[in-house]
Amino acid sequence: MEALVLEKAHELSLRDIQIPETLGPHDVRIALHTVGVCGSDVHYYDTGAIGQFVVREPMVLGHEAAGTIIEVGSDVQGLKVGDRVCMEPGIPDPNSKATRLGIYNLDPAVRFWATPPVHGVLRPTVVHPAAFTFKLPDNVSFAEGAMVEPLAVGMHGANKAQIKPGDLAVVIGAGPIGMVTLLSALAGGCSRVVIADVQQPKLDLAATLGPVTPVNVAQENLTDVVMKLTDGWGADIVFEASGNAKAAAGVFEPLCPAGRVVFIGIPGQPIAFDVSAAQVKEARIENVFRYAHVYPRAIALMGSGLLDVKPLITNTFGFEDSIAAFDFALHMPPDSVKVQITLPQ
Amino acid sequence: MEALVLEKAHELSLRDIQIPETLGPHDVRIALHTVGVCGSDVHYYDTGAIGQFVVREPMVLGHEAAGTIIEVGSDVQGLKVGDRVCMEPGIPDPNSKATRLGIYNLDPAVRFWATPPVHGVLRPTVVHPAAFTFKLPDNVSFAEGAMVEPLAVGMHGANKAQIKPGDLAVVIGAGPIGMVTLLSALAGGCSRVVIADVQQPKLDLAATLGPVTPVNVAQENLTDVVMKLTDGWGADIVFEASGNAKAAAGVFEPLCPAGRVVFIGIPGQPIAFDVSAAQVKEARIENVFRYAHVYPRAIALMGSGLLDVKPLITNTFGFEDSIAAFDFALHMPPDSVKVQITLPQ
Amino acid sequence: MEALVLEKAHELSLRDIQIPETLGPHDVRIALHTVGVCGSDVHYYDTGAIGQFVVREPMVLGHEAAGTIIEVGSDVQGLKVGDRVCMEPGIPDPNSKATRLGIYNLDPAVRFWATPPVHGVLRPTVVHPAAFTFKLPDNVSFAEGAMVEPLAVGMHGANKAQIKPGDLAVVIGAGPIGMVTLLSALAGGCSRVVIADVQQPKLDLAATLGPVTPVNVAQENLTDVVMKLTDGWGADIVFEASGNAKAAAGVFEPLCPAGRVVFIGIPGQPIAFDVSAAQVKEARIENVFRYAHVYPRAIALMGSGLLDVKPLITNTFGFEDSIAAFDFALHMPPDSVKVQITLPQ
Amino acid sequence: MEALVLEKAHELSLRDIQIPETLGPHDVRIALHTVGVCGSDVHYYDTGAIGQFVVREPMVLGHEAAGTIIEVGSDVQGLKVGDRVCMEPGIPDPNSKATRLGIYNLDPAVRFWATPPVHGVLRPTVVHPAAFTFKLPDNVSFAEGAMVEPLAVGMHGANKAQIKPGDLAVVIGAGPIGMVTLLSALAGGCSRVVIADVQQPKLDLAATLGPVTPVNVAQENLTDVVMKLTDGWGADIVFEASGNAKAAAGVFEPLCPAGRVVFIGIPGQPIAFDVSAAQVKEARIENVFRYAHVYPRAIALMGSGLLDVKPLITNTFGFEDSIAAFDFALHMPPDSVKVQITLPQ
Repeated sequence: MEALVLEKAHELSLRDIQIPETLGPHDVRIALHTVGVCGSDVHYYDTGAIGQFVVREPMVLGHEAAGTIIEVGSDVQGLKVGDRVCMEPGIPDPNSKATRLGIYNLDPAVRFWATPPVHGVLRPTVVHPAAFTFKLPDNVSFAEGAMVEPLAVGMHGANKAQIKPGDLAVVIGAGPIGMVTLLSALAGGCSRVVIADVQQPKLDLAATLGPVTPVNVAQENLTDVVMKLTDGWGADIVFEASGNAKAAAGVFEPLCPAGRVVFIGIPGQPIAFDVSAAQVKEARIENVFRYAHVYPRAIALMGSGLLDVKPLITNTFGFEDSIAAFDFALHMPPDSVKVQITLPQ
Repeated sequence: MEALVLEKAHELSLRDIQIPETLGPHDVRIALHTVGVCGSDVHYYDTGAIGQFVVREPMVLGHEAAGTIIEVGSDVQGLKVGDRVCMEPGIPDPNSKATRLGIYNLDPAVRFWATPPVHGVLRPTVVHPAAFTFKLPDNVSFAEGAMVEPLAVGMHGANKAQIKPGDLAVVIGAGPIGMVTLLSALAGGCSRVVIADVQQPKLDLAATLGPVTPVNVAQENLTDVVMKLTDGWGADIVFEASGNAKAAAGVFEPLCPAGRVVFIGIPGQPIAFDVSAAQVKEARIENVFRYAHVYPRAIALMGSGLLDVKPLITNTFGFEDSIAAFDFALHMPPDSVKVQITLPQ
Repeated sequence: MEALVLEKAHELSLRDIQIPETLGPHDVRIALHTVGVCGSDVHYYDTGAIGQFVVREPMVLGHEAAGTIIEVGSDVQGLKVGDRVCMEPGIPDPNSKATRLGIYNLDPAVRFWATPPVHGVLRPTVVHPAAFTFKLPDNVSFAEGAMVEPLAVGMHGANKAQIKPGDLAVVIGAGPIGMVTLLSALAGGCSRVVIADVQQPKLDLAATLGPVTPVNVAQENLTDVVMKLTDGWGADIVFEASGNAKAAAGVFEPLCPAGRVVFIGIPGQPIAFDVSAAQVKEARIENVFRYAHVYPRAIALMGSGLLDVKPLITNTFGFEDSIAAFDFALHMPPDSVKVQITLPQ
Repeated sequence: MEALVLEKAHELSLRDIQIPETLGPHDVRIALHTVGVCGSDVHYYDTGAIGQFVVREPMVLGHEAAGTIIEVGSDVQGLKVGDRVCMEPGIPDPNSKATRLGIYNLDPAVRFWATPPVHGVLRPTVVHPAAFTFKLPDNVSFAEGAMVEPLAVGMHGANKAQIKPGDLAVVIGAGPIGMVTLLSALAGGCSRVVIADVQQPKLDLAATLGPVTPVNVAQENLTDVVMKLTDGWGADIVFEASGNAKAAAGVFEPLCPAGRVVFIGIPGQPIAFDVSAAQVKEARIENVFRYAHVYPRAIALMGSGLLDVKPLITNTFGFEDSIAAFDFALHMPPDSVKVQITLPQ
């Protein structure tokens, strides 16, 4: 089949590749329709590796995907040919202790699309377990379906935050993950989100997504804004979604007593963590790794119209322009959030 | 001052009454603007008592209130003359164990407006602790401010439910408390609310409030509807807001495994509780008594536009027509939800 | 193999029975050593059914078991021939939604030993999944190992109660489940357990198990005792372990504000549940169905010497006297708690 | 009255000092019996300051105290002259938002004994609010009563950890706070504590306190020990009680997936926090600042015999030798844990 193959760092091909896949009794085969470009895809393109994961052989990219079921395994229930679906890209070992405990995202044996040596899905079809394939409501498009994967990260963060209705949240970082965290925080019960970044176009977009207070931290002090909004009490929740080590070190400053911090962004190096600053507020810190059990919840909120990801889909390319899409994503302009690629049907 | 006085069961007067009040250092004096009529007010009017609370002397009615500050005590901070506010009607003993633990609503010594022998606020002014007086945003009207009290009950229920973003909730009962619970569940992260009642006009109104599935249980089976919506899994949360003993006994049927039940309505007699039905799903049951720490959260959600109580305010009377308002509320038509009374300014 | 077979109600045989079992790659084969007699075994003996579960064909009894591994499947890790082990008697469907969420005890497809039509383990050997087979420390005997099953019920109840160190708990009922709940509550952080029953010998035994206040409710008022111990505040937790409908209806009386109730016993009929009594204290009610993820925790506490079940093992019979053991258990004297049967090795 | 006065850094006097105190209606007056020496007392002696708190005027030291009530205010209930008691040293502002929420330890206005400019209690008598004065059971000595203050820190940490019965915990640091954390973890439901330090005498003492595995990290690798004990899964909880920045940076290594970390020790500078290491395990981090609502729980566990602090009281001095006691504490030998001072009665 023809696929977008990362040959090695800096070298993409749109070419035929053999990916032998057999349909097991609990599997479905899906014709891909839309695949989003994630920062991790771009990072593999740019450097050939993420941490311990190194691209040693040609690998198909892409893991944010939606499509249509074209074949179902013999024991599959609840899904049928023709269903429009989106898919979780990670498949855990069903016999691991983490999986049995319900925290399958923490299973070290998870096989995740477009993480070496596992192929991604910028290709015509894929075989996938039915248990990790989710039907889309009629009013949710393929493009929105392909957004469920990044959205799930924000939703998982919102879950971990244990939002109480009416909380005020800070989101640090207005990139794709910051944006989906903002949407998840509002859909999850926050009354207002203060979002911090240095790119004004991203803040301008964020400000259109609901009761949002954008703060350009190149010009304004985040803590000052939060303290003014909360009569000096502080934010109930701070979501760190920038991955910036300096920003991550400052999470306790705008936080309220007994507030919660959620680390979603992944700083490249250890951050300076002021334990006594966390202690004087008895901050609870949660750390997020991908997501678990979130897809049906994200889809339900999108289907109900309570969470709208469409404003985040800023650029769409055809499959034949996949390499151009990646080159665009590599030098993303500040008013772009999410690049998607549409496959021929 | 002129007040709406319940002389005894069935006898209301709009007359002068002496209510000596001194302004302490932590108090404010408020000119009332809008006061809602609660089912409990109507019940005292109709029967002269609620459980152990018996009207033995003339008592002013009304506890759902908003108004304007006209005087502030010497030590009050954060509030000033002219502020538009709403008030919590219950004042706990600051030295009780429950209050110290942060669960002041469970303090048996709470003094609550319009609960014998404490006067309510269908009168020109009242003195109240600043700590239980909350500023309204400019975009929240007095009428909405007077809705915060009943809304707080639903919000407290939503808090207790520990909603996870994307949950599907059932609300049993589409009276005023069912309606505010529905709004709180949606604002608090639910993706859909299934609301059950037998009065079609109330269900029709509920259906306009968001992603809501109305079920007229005189014609449809609630559990069937829920199971169809959830592929046989069940609702994450069931809010019992009808106070109907038979309905309350059925809460486990539409519930999912490990689901949560919140009892908000107060059945007049013990209900038949099927422990084994609760056990096979390991239901968690929460019980709600008024609310605590909820007012600022409710006001924040209203100010952000994420929770709109205006559709619930169906009937407004002038203060001079207060007795007519109560007679209307006593025989409420099915398309009415909340009656409010506006005081002369 | 020779097994204790329930032919039908009131008829037990110690006889040969064919139970074809193949050892899968993730299974182990165990030679049984000790099997406890559970109230449910006795109930099947006495009536031939429990609720919807009816003994229609001869069935081997027994599900509280410990033994020695005599064969291991090809993919088994962490267990080897000769290991002394105890086993969870219920095996869930690994592909069910409940199992994936980590709440495998709520999977309706669970196959549970000695629950029709699944054979129990009063027989020489059994094949079982390694994932539900747990190694015993050297200082934990087979007899104690066979107690882990009932203990797990109490431990699961203690988990659900979310004990805070220093809590005072009430346990209603001093039968085997009440006793293991008492031990679990103390090991789990309670500072004292008040245990209520009408059988003085059971209370006398309970009183030897730690900081325990026995209350013979035929002579004393439970709530009075609790309120005296807590200066009128009430118990932090009430565990209902009697299954008595009248006792279960009274759980809110000795409870403190914001206290927790855990229903472990299974009343035969619905109980009269006073919602308003639960509301005025905002009781949280948890319901327990068997257990999940508890065995390793129970074994760890026993191995550490922090939880001692030995005093509860009051009567031991040889396998050849199994029928006598059941007849004894059917008319259990008040100073007996747990009957066990030892198999020939 | 004669008191132990810190005149300035390095200078202690046992001398008369005037401390005017009036007994309010909700207060009691206590004759001090035993006062423990805390690391913070020693630090003020050694340096004259802790962070922002600087000793600018002579200040009485001591805040770990027990004594006997000698006078009660007019509105005090539940306490009487002659009662043996211990006291919380911090008094919050009853009108602060934090206090109203039940998190009074986070109120920035707390007045805390022996924290400038508030006098401590190494003196004959003190006036204190009854609400923060707790009766000791007959079987709890004054010496044990004076241990409740440091114990409360460990108990609060154990509360925050949300121990599940049977958890395995690591405690880093075997100083006084590490020791009380160990005791709290075991009393709170842990099945085993692995304690790490470099001082062998402290580890030897810790090993006598229950099911404890001491690890001398100068000789052994902590993570190796934990992984061996847990079959490679990791510890459920890691309590950081050393305040050592390097040790604190390593907390995620021995932790299990979805484990909890509690920071109790206060490192003098920011620690290097590896967010990605925390994320891959989705660690939850709790931060502890003193304690709230813990005294009655600590006293209950001590009174029940489930938690024994006596082995930690290694050195006792008479009041007349107070300065010698501080000099001893300043150069504490490795086999000493807690120094206490007994006042003349």
